[in-house]
Amino acid sequence: MAMNGAESLVRTMVGAGVDVSFTNPGTSEMHFVAALDRVDGMRCVLCLFEGGATGAADGYARMAEKPAATLLHLGPGMANGLANIHNAKRARSPMVNVVGEHALHHRRYDAPLTTDIEALARPLSHWVRTGSSSRTIAQDGADAIYAANVAPGQIATLILPADTAWGEGSGAVAVRKPRARAKVADDVVRAIAKIVTEKSGVMLMLAGVALREKPMNDAARIAAKTECRLMAPGANARVERGVGRFAIDRVPYPVDLAVERLKDVRHMVLVGAKPPVGFFGYPGKPSAMTHPDCAFHVLADEDEDLADALARLADEIGAPKAAPAAPITARPDLPTTTKLDPDSIGQTLGALLPEGAIVCDESVTTGRNFFAMTKNAPKHDWLQLCGGAIGEGIPMATGAAVSCPDRRVVNLQADGSGMYTLQCLWTQARENLNVLTLIWANRSYAILRGELMHVGAENPGRKAHDMLSLDNPPLDWVALAKGMGVEGTRVETPQDLAKAMQGALRRSGPYLIEVLI
Amino acid sequence: MAMNGAESLVRTMVGAGVDVSFTNPGTSEMHFVAALDRVDGMRCVLCLFEGGATGAADGYARMAEKPAATLLHLGPGMANGLANIHNAKRARSPMVNVVGEHALHHRRYDAPLTTDIEALARPLSHWVRTGSSSRTIAQDGADAIYAANVAPGQIATLILPADTAWGEGSGAVAVRKPRARAKVADDVVRAIAKIVTEKSGVMLMLAGVALREKPMNDAARIAAKTECRLMAPGANARVERGVGRFAIDRVPYPVDLAVERLKDVRHMVLVGAKPPVGFFGYPGKPSAMTHPDCAFHVLADEDEDLADALARLADEIGAPKAAPAAPITARPDLPTTTKLDPDSIGQTLGALLPEGAIVCDESVTTGRNFFAMTKNAPKHDWLQLCGGAIGEGIPMATGAAVSCPDRRVVNLQADGSGMYTLQCLWTQARENLNVLTLIWANRSYAILRGELMHVGAENPGRKAHDMLSLDNPPLDWVALAKGMGVEGTRVETPQDLAKAMQGALRRSGPYLIEVLI
Repeated sequence: MAMNGAESLVRTMVGAGVDVSFTNPGTSEMHFVAALDRVDGMRCVLCLFEGGATGAADGYARMAEKPAATLLHLGPGMANGLANIHNAKRARSPMVNVVGEHALHHRRYDAPLTTDIEALARPLSHWVRTGSSSRTIAQDGADAIYAANVAPGQIATLILPADTAWGEGSGAVAVRKPRARAKVADDVVRAIAKIVTEKSGVMLMLAGVALREKPMNDAARIAAKTECRLMAPGANARVERGVGRFAIDRVPYPVDLAVERLKDVRHMVLVGAKPPVGFFGYPGKPSAMTHPDCAFHVLADEDEDLADALARLADEIGAPKAAPAAPITARPDLPTTTKLDPDSIGQTLGALLPEGAIVCDESVTTGRNFFAMTKNAPKHDWLQLCGGAIGEGIPMATGAAVSCPDRRVVNLQADGSGMYTLQCLWTQARENLNVLTLIWANRSYAILRGELMHVGAENPGRKAHDMLSLDNPPLDWVALAKGMGVEGTRVETPQDLAKAMQGALRRSGPYLIEVLI
Repeated sequence: MAMNGAESLVRTMVGAGVDVSFTNPGTSEMHFVAALDRVDGMRCVLCLFEGGATGAADGYARMAEKPAATLLHLGPGMANGLANIHNAKRARSPMVNVVGEHALHHRRYDAPLTTDIEALARPLSHWVRTGSSSRTIAQDGADAIYAANVAPGQIATLILPADTAWGEGSGAVAVRKPRARAKVADDVVRAIAKIVTEKSGVMLMLAGVALREKPMNDAARIAAKTECRLMAPGANARVERGVGRFAIDRVPYPVDLAVERLKDVRHMVLVGAKPPVGFFGYPGKPSAMTHPDCAFHVLADEDEDLADALARLADEIGAPKAAPAAPITARPDLPTTTKLDPDSIGQTLGALLPEGAIVCDESVTTGRNFFAMTKNAPKHDWLQLCGGAIGEGIPMATGAAVSCPDRRVVNLQADGSGMYTLQCLWTQARENLNVLTLIWANRSYAILRGELMHVGAENPGRKAHDMLSLDNPPLDWVALAKGMGVEGTRVETPQDLAKAMQGALRRSGPYLIEVLI
């Protein structure tokens, strides 16, 4: 028989460099699975829950700078993956979701798993299509890959009716090359140049790919020549940082702190960024974090060539060719205190983070000082939760490790959030990924205790307390990890944490440290 | 201050008997949490993942015959709960989802967690509304509860902007009583009476609440008077069964078996049921499980009074007032074989299932003979996965146990499916629920191995094999349970299984047995 639709689709994907698939298949995807099996060049990484697959695809894309595929099972599989698709969408990660569907002739029978998959996919996808024929499904896949690669990265969801997989296909088709990011017009650069040189209270807000080494260096050149400040949003897909790189600060999470930090800004130049707003609205507090008199100026939208725009802006204002050397500051020593708290943990991370680390940060409350305390560690990448949907850290670390097998992934993980998608620890064991997971075991939804105060409910009773507490029974993360084939240990002092980290960083494969705080 | 919107809403719910909430709150729900705290009469059950909360609400509703509430956090929280909402929708369970949302004034700022929640909710909800004012939110809640209770049970989703919770409310409002199920017209009963008495090859397909003791008894009266057969769909929300009750058979899952079992049926009378169709479509196999010449006749739609219709039909044809006594057949003895397989497990279940057990069955492949082998156990209820979205067993058992604290819940759980929502084990420990979880550790997606054959991919290679295998590394369910505060043990013989079950059934609180097969 000629090549079927499934194999045509898989060969199209591999030909376009989409060669990793985070999979969670079901019956309707069996022909696709059989095709994955037959075609060389596609790495299939099994996840035991779809939220793991989509979160891993996000982490992969942030490091690989190209999309991974996911393989999801019908509408409920799509639904299970949506929260981390939301996070990936906010991170502007490219992603190609392949969602199995009933054979077209079977749909009208309303079998138990029948849902309106397009309706479920559309709110969180940039591009959605349902295949209509095995003859055209490879072209549909090519269009999905092209859509995913549109800057700054899009979520493309291809719904694959089983008969479009099993029927006769077209063979592989070529995927159009991603188009280049558009350059910013000269007059825009000149207008912004006037602002940064002539106005006071100027801040450049850098986001997206502006947070890589080279564009941040150009931004630092601009700051050196003018009085403008540089800042990044509170959560970012990927920041290149560490010794020798510009140490950018982020907008703080708490509203009052953010407003305080931005109160003198009167001109905010947006470089791939949006105006900073509160994560949530609160009674009597502002939604916009900036001063009411702050004007916004767009140097470049997130899909434009941010790096080029910053370089041209620096040249336009006659900034020095080299940014001022970052001050040489030693990384911190290991802490001497025996108290395990966010400060001593941050100091330990600052002291031990290895060269080339990929930090996947879902620390939530525990980690608010970690960014500052690690800026003098060797060069590394810092990946955050961009959409606020908790439960991405473990999957993101999994995907980043698949993308960069020679680097060390360090997952800074809040316990409550980690429970959402703990299944990815199993994938880390199965694939022997170099992921060190540090669990901040405060045994509560600590952020919500603060929030309960913020909304004016100061004296929670037992029921409210219980709804925010994870200590009855206490979660035993070492046992949970063991259950999925990942070794681990529990620490209760900074000294034990340092020793455990040092040991874990010497081994290959995954390891988990439960940090009791 | 006057009662706020949140407290008005909670008091409305409690007043209407919606007094259990499976919660997974976030910041935007903090005023609602504070209100839950202040109002007596609402039991809050914390789940560590939203799919746990929605699956538990389904299990609760099936046993309590009234809706539970869920509390979910914004669009991603809704998304995480959707797969089990789909299952509940297919089970026709009533459910009231309360989904937190940004304050109305905050929405336009497109903060990271902003999504179109209505769009996410609508494909799997019967009723969706976004609150518009704290003054009317309690009435919105009353409308949601009324909608949930419309027969045969509906999914109602109320989106709760934070300011409608914190602003001044209306106080509690009354909820209209659920309206009674409509009676079937006399001429319909008479028409069906002619069919069951005059035609041959007649089958009554009973579904929904027709699968309770009394209506099944009336169906058995009809069968005793005529030559018609009785059957139930493959998956059902709740079947009342065990010694002294009619032992109804179900349509088998595999297409070939189902077609064989139904091949002589020429007149199918639907009692709350739909025509039986294949779970999936396959190349060259039919979607309808019935013979092409089979005619369908509706005695009652799923929202009509099924029990009344069956009783009247039995009377109409002059059936004996009492159904024939079910044959007295002893429950099986414990198996003597030392081989642990689906047969010896089924026999053990048949021998040990206690009186009043609530069986939550997500056995998938392992359990296809369990139904037959337990029919002579003492009276019990059997609850199944109705929507086919795996990952409902552990949550469903949790909710059923919350609903019926004096009964024993036995969760028959496939391992691959169990991994989707294992977090509910923690809730079982926290609430000290009487749930015995039996994990069928075949360490594979066994159903998919069969399916790969069905679709004609007979010789899977290593990659396909790997995508369907969970044995590398093996999951250690005893460790996973321990990590969430649930004790457990692993068994490898039927004798050890029996001993472990007997021990577990004597204790209070949750217990897990990993059954290596």
